[in-house]
Amino acid sequence: MIRFADPAAFAASLARLPAPDAAATEAARARQSELTKPLGSLGRLEEIAVFMAGWQGRERPRADLIRAVIFAGNHGVAARGVSAYPPEVTVQMVANFRARGAAINALTAACGAELAVVPLDLDRPTGDITCMPAMSEADCLAALNAGAAAVAADTELLFVGEMGIGNTTPAAALAAQVFGGEAADWIGRGTGLDDDGLARKAAAVAAALSLHGRHCGTAFETLRRLGGREIAAMAGAVLAARHLRVPVLLDGFITCAAMAPLLADNDAFLAHCLAAHCSAEAGHARLLDRFGLDPLLQLGMRLGEGSGAAVAAQIVRSAIAAHNGMATFAEAAVAGKNAGRDAETAQA
Amino acid sequence: MIRFADPAAFAASLARLPAPDAAATEAARARQSELTKPLGSLGRLEEIAVFMAGWQGRERPRADLIRAVIFAGNHGVAARGVSAYPPEVTVQMVANFRARGAAINALTAACGAELAVVPLDLDRPTGDITCMPAMSEADCLAALNAGAAAVAADTELLFVGEMGIGNTTPAAALAAQVFGGEAADWIGRGTGLDDDGLARKAAAVAAALSLHGRHCGTAFETLRRLGGREIAAMAGAVLAARHLRVPVLLDGFITCAAMAPLLADNDAFLAHCLAAHCSAEAGHARLLDRFGLDPLLQLGMRLGEGSGAAVAAQIVRSAIAAHNGMATFAEAAVAGKNAGRDAETAQA
Repeated sequence: MIRFADPAAFAASLARLPAPDAAATEAARARQSELTKPLGSLGRLEEIAVFMAGWQGRERPRADLIRAVIFAGNHGVAARGVSAYPPEVTVQMVANFRARGAAINALTAACGAELAVVPLDLDRPTGDITCMPAMSEADCLAALNAGAAAVAADTELLFVGEMGIGNTTPAAALAAQVFGGEAADWIGRGTGLDDDGLARKAAAVAAALSLHGRHCGTAFETLRRLGGREIAAMAGAVLAARHLRVPVLLDGFITCAAMAPLLADNDAFLAHCLAAHCSAEAGHARLLDRFGLDPLLQLGMRLGEGSGAAVAAQIVRSAIAAHNGMATFAEAAVAGKNAGRDAETAQA
Repeated sequence: MIRFADPAAFAASLARLPAPDAAATEAARARQSELTKPLGSLGRLEEIAVFMAGWQGRERPRADLIRAVIFAGNHGVAARGVSAYPPEVTVQMVANFRARGAAINALTAACGAELAVVPLDLDRPTGDITCMPAMSEADCLAALNAGAAAVAADTELLFVGEMGIGNTTPAAALAAQVFGGEAADWIGRGTGLDDDGLARKAAAVAAALSLHGRHCGTAFETLRRLGGREIAAMAGAVLAARHLRVPVLLDGFITCAAMAPLLADNDAFLAHCLAAHCSAEAGHARLLDRFGLDPLLQLGMRLGEGSGAAVAAQIVRSAIAAHNGMATFAEAAVAGKNAGRDAETAQA
């Protein structure tokens, strides 16, 4: 299990990241060229299979053990009226996850993923980022480690999700801090905010950036000041996954915003990640563009909870099913491209 | 079972199409507004669930019995050198489907669909459309009925696919005949054609349009002259599905081109269809645009066989899993939008 002893250990872990297995990547690519289909005709499914092979270090990767972890946190800034829902919904939704009543329960069941729910000190909201850091050093480290601890080494595909009323506000602050631009460029209506709420949210993000911006010199400090517990936990989980060579499907805006400070410190950080979808939350497309990631799905989803990743996980399963299950041209005795072409064009 | 006695019966069947069940549509829409998520936050998954409810006529639709049918046919025009593969690959791939070695076998297994393979007179290619009609009236009717016969009434979601070396050529001819434009607007590299092959394909499409264009007054005659057996079979299957109120996922360029003549005769024909994906074959995006359908996936696939629909079927399954499996706000005791808003803004 990955554990960060202190902020320096976290930084060191982020600084030296493993690469995918080149031999497995090459073997998977060679296999794709022998399967009974024109090379490239399965499009991104072929790329996904090769990507999975590289990170799992085997020519035929697997996606039987898909694990989803939802982290939940509460936010001091929610008191600023930045969400359409009251803060007690966070704990109510955690109960709903446990009772298997939420979207992510149905969607993980549909894709065969195991779901874990990790509430993080819900009765102790983070500091209001408009006037103080979200977390102490100890709190931020604990959240990063809660994330890392949730990643089992035998996981074949991981995705993380979040629940936290008000958390598009710290997410927008993180995105703006890392990639620049105005607060307005990164905020959206979240779960359904009205115009007044949107104005309060823009003001909260601007205030947070103004207070903390100059102190955000490292990924750790950026997460600590502008993030939240579930946000830091997702970052810790995805970093731990990298060291365990577990490939990751990134969910929506908040998940991606959690990754932004780590990408700022190491521009190879997201090499083990696929973007599951592009959500309807305005800043998400912009984040994916900065990440250089092309989302697998664009279905106008904007729920969080890892819901977009749960749908995209089925595309990964399909990609691997085709990669592992198909016959080669030789096995099936099917003629390859341009076989008999001389005879054919003579006829024409 | 639906059966078309003659071309006039086919035309009559196409002229009077059932509509979705309004009460079930409304009930499903109401249910979506009560589930424990902000309304609209599952994006197109919500629309898909409501669509499925309407066609199945029940508030909680199902996608347990997904059926896929691949129709295979051979084409006289293949002798014109319009494919990168020799014509004998059609029969070889049918054997591969039966031996479970093809992409569609792996992909239907992954989405839990039943797969049927229907080869249509493979040893008797259709007429070369550059110099004669593809089929006699009897042959075209037989192909339409083979399609209709392949649709079982208890199917909860249907998709059809095709295998037929050379069949992007008749598909391009059908698209150009129905929607206009030059041959070059509708052709592409299919399974991997080179530049010379592409020029032969453009010439073949132009010759076919020039010979048959003025005689294509009905969907039947257009399919008969410019289509092929597997193409007519797909059209027959999707029309039969409509009368059985079975919702359909449309696959790629050839599947969609098969639908074009029917849409020309009845512009409500595709109301029971979702576009599974947009393929890499050039004409497909253009066809979907003319259909007014927004594809669920854009993964650069261009294999045919129903492969794109098999991947998209998992999105439909996810949509229905969420729709049926989630708790309502009342069941889960989760506060709704703007609950406690007065108290919250007072704090802010």
